[in-house]
Amino acid sequence: MKSNFFVPLAPRGLSTVSPPPPWHYAGDFMIIDFWARPEAVAAVLPEELQVDVKAEGHAQAYFIDWQFTGQHDELLDPARYQYREFFILVDAQFNGKPVAFCPYIFVDNDAAIARGLAQGFPKRYGSIYQTRLFAANGPASPKLVPGSRFGASASAAGQRIARGTVALEKAVTDPSALASRPTINLRHFPRLAAGQWERPAVHELVESVMDNFTVADAWMGKGELALPECENEEVSDLAPVRCGNGYRMSVSYSVTDLKTLVDHSVK
Amino acid sequence: MKSNFFVPLAPRGLSTVSPPPPWHYAGDFMIIDFWARPEAVAAVLPEELQVDVKAEGHAQAYFIDWQFTGQHDELLDPARYQYREFFILVDAQFNGKPVAFCPYIFVDNDAAIARGLAQGFPKRYGSIYQTRLFAANGPASPKLVPGSRFGASASAAGQRIARGTVALEKAVTDPSALASRPTINLRHFPRLAAGQWERPAVHELVESVMDNFTVADAWMGKGELALPECENEEVSDLAPVRCGNGYRMSVSYSVTDLKTLVDHSVK
Amino acid sequence: MKSNFFVPLAPRGLSTVSPPPPWHYAGDFMIIDFWARPEAVAAVLPEELQVDVKAEGHAQAYFIDWQFTGQHDELLDPARYQYREFFILVDAQFNGKPVAFCPYIFVDNDAAIARGLAQGFPKRYGSIYQTRLFAANGPASPKLVPGSRFGASASAAGQRIARGTVALEKAVTDPSALASRPTINLRHFPRLAAGQWERPAVHELVESVMDNFTVADAWMGKGELALPECENEEVSDLAPVRCGNGYRMSVSYSVTDLKTLVDHSVK
Amino acid sequence: MKSNFFVPLAPRGLSTVSPPPPWHYAGDFMIIDFWARPEAVAAVLPEELQVDVKAEGHAQAYFIDWQFTGQHDELLDPARYQYREFFILVDAQFNGKPVAFCPYIFVDNDAAIARGLAQGFPKRYGSIYQTRLFAANGPASPKLVPGSRFGASASAAGQRIARGTVALEKAVTDPSALASRPTINLRHFPRLAAGQWERPAVHELVESVMDNFTVADAWMGKGELALPECENEEVSDLAPVRCGNGYRMSVSYSVTDLKTLVDHSVK
Repeated sequence: MKSNFFVPLAPRGLSTVSPPPPWHYAGDFMIIDFWARPEAVAAVLPEELQVDVKAEGHAQAYFIDWQFTGQHDELLDPARYQYREFFILVDAQFNGKPVAFCPYIFVDNDAAIARGLAQGFPKRYGSIYQTRLFAANGPASPKLVPGSRFGASASAAGQRIARGTVALEKAVTDPSALASRPTINLRHFPRLAAGQWERPAVHELVESVMDNFTVADAWMGKGELALPECENEEVSDLAPVRCGNGYRMSVSYSVTDLKTLVDHSVK
Repeated sequence: MKSNFFVPLAPRGLSTVSPPPPWHYAGDFMIIDFWARPEAVAAVLPEELQVDVKAEGHAQAYFIDWQFTGQHDELLDPARYQYREFFILVDAQFNGKPVAFCPYIFVDNDAAIARGLAQGFPKRYGSIYQTRLFAANGPASPKLVPGSRFGASASAAGQRIARGTVALEKAVTDPSALASRPTINLRHFPRLAAGQWERPAVHELVESVMDNFTVADAWMGKGELALPECENEEVSDLAPVRCGNGYRMSVSYSVTDLKTLVDHSVK
Repeated sequence: MKSNFFVPLAPRGLSTVSPPPPWHYAGDFMIIDFWARPEAVAAVLPEELQVDVKAEGHAQAYFIDWQFTGQHDELLDPARYQYREFFILVDAQFNGKPVAFCPYIFVDNDAAIARGLAQGFPKRYGSIYQTRLFAANGPASPKLVPGSRFGASASAAGQRIARGTVALEKAVTDPSALASRPTINLRHFPRLAAGQWERPAVHELVESVMDNFTVADAWMGKGELALPECENEEVSDLAPVRCGNGYRMSVSYSVTDLKTLVDHSVK
Repeated sequence: MKSNFFVPLAPRGLSTVSPPPPWHYAGDFMIIDFWARPEAVAAVLPEELQVDVKAEGHAQAYFIDWQFTGQHDELLDPARYQYREFFILVDAQFNGKPVAFCPYIFVDNDAAIARGLAQGFPKRYGSIYQTRLFAANGPASPKLVPGSRFGASASAAGQRIARGTVALEKAVTDPSALASRPTINLRHFPRLAAGQWERPAVHELVESVMDNFTVADAWMGKGELALPECENEEVSDLAPVRCGNGYRMSVSYSVTDLKTLVDHSVK
């Protein structure tokens, strides 16, 4: 067996969809707190997780402009490795512990889809954008000051699945305000052989492991989110009943590991 | 466990990246026979396959305009399910039997990536186009007559990885002229846990199973193919030493099964 | 002055956005008759046109898969010249004569934007798809038989601006059933100099001229169209009050001329 | 005549391809100095400009990540208005004065194409990317320190037309190091009427006017640029004989005017 991590298992490893770990990320985040209908949150949880009753349907929407690099200067090849992402995390419990589960995630890059599937993120292809910050002052760039606004949107197959805005109020001086729950995913890979469709080759509840998590220029304020109804999409089942804080910050971290919580893979 | 085949395991199955099998396909094919350097073909084979010495590096390039449907009129949602594909098959042997192996494949649709991974096709995202045939006569459409030409190209991350043309000479009246070898893939899904990167959760040599394979309007003639050198891509290692026949036809088939030949998945 | 028709005025004419006329087109059409609110139709007409009162808001939506060629085998370079289009024509009158005016049009190709601007089509970039017909029978392709259905959609900047279906009932045997009104456009090119923004350099009412208009495989049946409300888009102001016939056919024609009806360009 | 600046002349001005001026821009720039063959530079100049003999073929390549806004918070709708750009400026002379002329420019956004055409930039659609800078430290983001590297690329219709890198050496403390020549464009809009193809409706030599030009975080170092040969593209005729400095900076400015130098429009 060749040593490649991902397909294609190319002889020189260049045409592989993404390099193997370690994976390094830097990005600009827009995060919006919201509350969905609790029964809609319950409906997206895998059976291994329990509803977090006290969360009352709390969830978060993330819009991220990402830059990725492996160990070979992939950050210098942005056409292939830079990408944008939208995802939702819903509050849940695992063995009585508060966790966050990712039911939906969209990216605009195939290397990111591949890494995501390995991590258990259920990635689909989408088109995602957020307002950017530039160092040169002027009307076309917001600043990190109270009252600045940032907008974001996500679309899949030509339908707008999410629209968000964050209006800044203050810098986040207490980093504990940004503490988040462990991110729980379902790693899943099907079997196609006739009669085996309900016996996935991989079906594991996993916890994301992030190293060297770094936050910079974190601001918070008011968040607004819409998850519009779309034909043959159910992301809107999680449409906000109400929205809460919005955050805008830069983040970096690395990924070299994954923790399996429950393994239901069918041998 | 929910009954969904693919992620996301959405409650109503609508937001899943692709519906479960059965999968039905119809498409327009441009196929170009070519011969690569035999050592380049040998380099892309997995260890379970052997070089087909008599083939002398023979391979085929496929450009396909696909339409997909499952069981819920997915063909009426072309923004989500219609797609284009480019792939290469190289001649090989498995236990002394002639087979064809797919080292590289590119599609412009995430549902097609997901189904492909389940089948063992090592799909990446690409941008693929081929000359189309229209029923209305005029200078902008070729006809199915000797001398008509069709062009095709494939790109990945903004680099042109393949360029092909087919010049028609005659209709294919003997369908055995189109007989092809069994298509062999590597189904592969990695493990991300530290220390497990070289122990894939899924690593199986599989044979594609196609039902109700139907061909219409098959023509053949002269094929030309280029696989240009690209930065950090190795598809061009298979660049043609010489090209042979070119084919243009319409094809349909269904997929409901997959045959495992060798299972090297690490338990 | 160089002889190029379009910018860039490249020395060898290769890097020009589109070749000069003659322009040849072949395409598959889905057309849906519908009636918008008459005041919404009136609102999109330029002052040189009058409301066609008897039309009662009649309009047509077109989804087209196009192939283009100039005189240098551009049809063999589909990555650059093949494209998809969605547009609306509304009934109107010019000097008492029934005409059709194009208020909105979207294509997925810059060469098509350039040619459209020269013709007066107010083209924007969009993402357009329609169900295709393939010669090989099977569940993934409709056939030209009663009951077959075709779907189409158009999106702009990630928002779904149109969704249509056509259900076939019968072949069109009387070509006069397909007769259409002359297509009227506004050719418009602004001035950017301060103080000149309301004095366009080009502002002409023009009539499209199509040579060798050919129709093949025309079928008609029932059409359905939705023009959903989108943020900061007003295409939905023309949303159907009711829908009528739907058509599916192949068309080819050439363009080598344009007829100016009224020239309001500011000298 | 309606007051819209661009087509479509939509009743409420929302569906217009881009809002009218004033136009505000903020962006991250990668600029690479290079020298093309002087005869290749001469070949792209319009007849109204003269070769700048002392420049010896000097030119600049620009890769820009742009954010645009008009007067209605367009920066909050990045899916529609944020974009990326690649262009080349070549040294020339106009009436003995040193100027820079733009022979080729590519953007990934239709609003930017429209504004560009009004300014005389010969815009085509392309796919452009550059390495980004993020506030959070880590391996996936360069920093503004000596030795940091940034990569960029541009593609058109699936072909890689440009690849560049900038390696930082020092902050630019003397802003005069960034002084640039006036940017000269050809505003050009054709006539399609038979017999009029060589008599453009608009053909003016114009000079760009930029207000409130602001630079921040400017660094310079070594630049590298490749303009690879592509099928039916002539950008590579300007391929570097040698490369010089590279720059990385943030820039903002506004556009509300344009200066006509020579008007060859055919009345």
